[in-house]
Amino acid sequence: MTGLKNDRLLRALRRQPVDVTPVWVMRQAGRYLPEYRSTREKCGSFMSLCQNPQAACEVTLQPLERFDLDAAILFSDILTIPDAMGLGLYFVEGEGPRFRKVVSTPGDIEALPVVNTLKDLTYVTDAVRVIRRELNGRVPLIGFAGSPWTLATYIIEGGPSREFAQTKALVYDQPEVLALLLEKLTASVIDYLNAQIAAGVQAVQIFDTWGGVLSASAYLKFSLAYMQRIVSALNTGPDGDPVPVILFTKGGGAWLEQMAESGCHALGLDWSQDIAQARRRVGDRVALQGNLDPAVLRRSPRVIA
Amino acid sequence: MTGLKNDRLLRALRRQPVDVTPVWVMRQAGRYLPEYRSTREKCGSFMSLCQNPQAACEVTLQPLERFDLDAAILFSDILTIPDAMGLGLYFVEGEGPRFRKVVSTPGDIEALPVVNTLKDLTYVTDAVRVIRRELNGRVPLIGFAGSPWTLATYIIEGGPSREFAQTKALVYDQPEVLALLLEKLTASVIDYLNAQIAAGVQAVQIFDTWGGVLSASAYLKFSLAYMQRIVSALNTGPDGDPVPVILFTKGGGAWLEQMAESGCHALGLDWSQDIAQARRRVGDRVALQGNLDPAVLRRSPRVIA
Repeated sequence: MTGLKNDRLLRALRRQPVDVTPVWVMRQAGRYLPEYRSTREKCGSFMSLCQNPQAACEVTLQPLERFDLDAAILFSDILTIPDAMGLGLYFVEGEGPRFRKVVSTPGDIEALPVVNTLKDLTYVTDAVRVIRRELNGRVPLIGFAGSPWTLATYIIEGGPSREFAQTKALVYDQPEVLALLLEKLTASVIDYLNAQIAAGVQAVQIFDTWGGVLSASAYLKFSLAYMQRIVSALNTGPDGDPVPVILFTKGGGAWLEQMAESGCHALGLDWSQDIAQARRRVGDRVALQGNLDPAVLRRSPRVIA
Repeated sequence: MTGLKNDRLLRALRRQPVDVTPVWVMRQAGRYLPEYRSTREKCGSFMSLCQNPQAACEVTLQPLERFDLDAAILFSDILTIPDAMGLGLYFVEGEGPRFRKVVSTPGDIEALPVVNTLKDLTYVTDAVRVIRRELNGRVPLIGFAGSPWTLATYIIEGGPSREFAQTKALVYDQPEVLALLLEKLTASVIDYLNAQIAAGVQAVQIFDTWGGVLSASAYLKFSLAYMQRIVSALNTGPDGDPVPVILFTKGGGAWLEQMAESGCHALGLDWSQDIAQARRRVGDRVALQGNLDPAVLRRSPRVIA
């Protein structure tokens, strides 16, 4: 059906029987691999690497050569969307992402465009096509996007944050201004993920890295509601089947029941969640993945096993 | 019975009826108050302020002059214990706590003493006595300590951390070395909180600031188990009644049921937790406090209300 030699991940995401639990890793392509560092150096910067489909394909496949993984994950960054909105993304060594353009007034938000992926982010859809061709059906390719709330925090704070003071000020004082930004990001993410699906990704994950900093009611209103709209607006794959959607809110363990009702196929769990307990809470509605403390991966093979 | 003019908090912690919900605030004494900044400046440094019982009393009472609060909370720091173990606590402006002495080998841990509060931390018990005298029964005084796991992370990482790489290395590779440190810290915290109770605190909170970075099974083993031992080793107050214990694990929402079974009287919730949902999960065993997003407090009176 899927034309895949290894369709374990897609079967698991659809809650169909599998021989063994499929494995893929967040940031499975990256700095821990010398071959990644070498490709990145050749490209000059992290963004040049993302924007070069051949190089992005190369680093996407590198971990599959070393490890017996059940999926490839598109090498890219969640901040391609704000970059495509004209905010001028760049990275400061050791500090993370920054934007050349500051977004602070309602007028700034008003002026932001919705992303047209086929016009502004062709390097991503091109990378998807190159990777699919190179994978040649070996394992499925996972695409992804940041959640609107998570993207909004980066845009409003101008980079990573610890307290999210500016974005939370909007939550409590100007929710309608924040909603306008979230609307634009939601439309952009829908366009972006549908373009990834059309180009060939076989599953998508929505990364809600910062949903966990919200209060329960604010999470439902400012993060989950928009992710839910994205899930229901995604197109089916070329075979006419729904493309499985994985929802991951870091620190979102309090809201698993509501996340499971979003229409997504699977939930990513952070490592504070016990899988058996999470299963009792969400019932049989969704697949569950994750919950490994990344610190484990630096330990001995015995401990990892 | 309690001799207090306002015993709302103690009644609420014991699950007795109250007229209105009692209010106190984490860090209710601190930098947001000009009078605090002035006292601190006079003392020269944060640690000199903590170590001066008169000054610590002054800043403990300052917020009660401005706001109609239902408790005073002892002005101090959770790192008094590692300091009293001889690690040389100091603060770097804008970066937080550091230690002069590095603890990295099993031998370093072996060499650490258990704290004798009446010998090493008399400035804390002196402050408790001064504050109780000044409060004169107005509201109860809450004492506190850091959890053994939280103190261990500061000791092993040498200060605050984002990934807790060294401490997690011990979790997975040398759990027996970590256990030795946690044993010493548990004995120290028991001694410390019992000394605070003897000096006059009327409730205690255990701050487990970093329990939430652990996996479910590691949390139970390396954080909750030790807090449970502390709870069961605390002495009754001078009236012979148990002193209410509040347990707070930041990011610990996944484990509320297990925390509620620790023998504590109340759980502190972080703001990701919905109180009604938390109540359904823990039943009637414990009181619940907290869950306000601190970002709310910077907003308008209308939003705060």
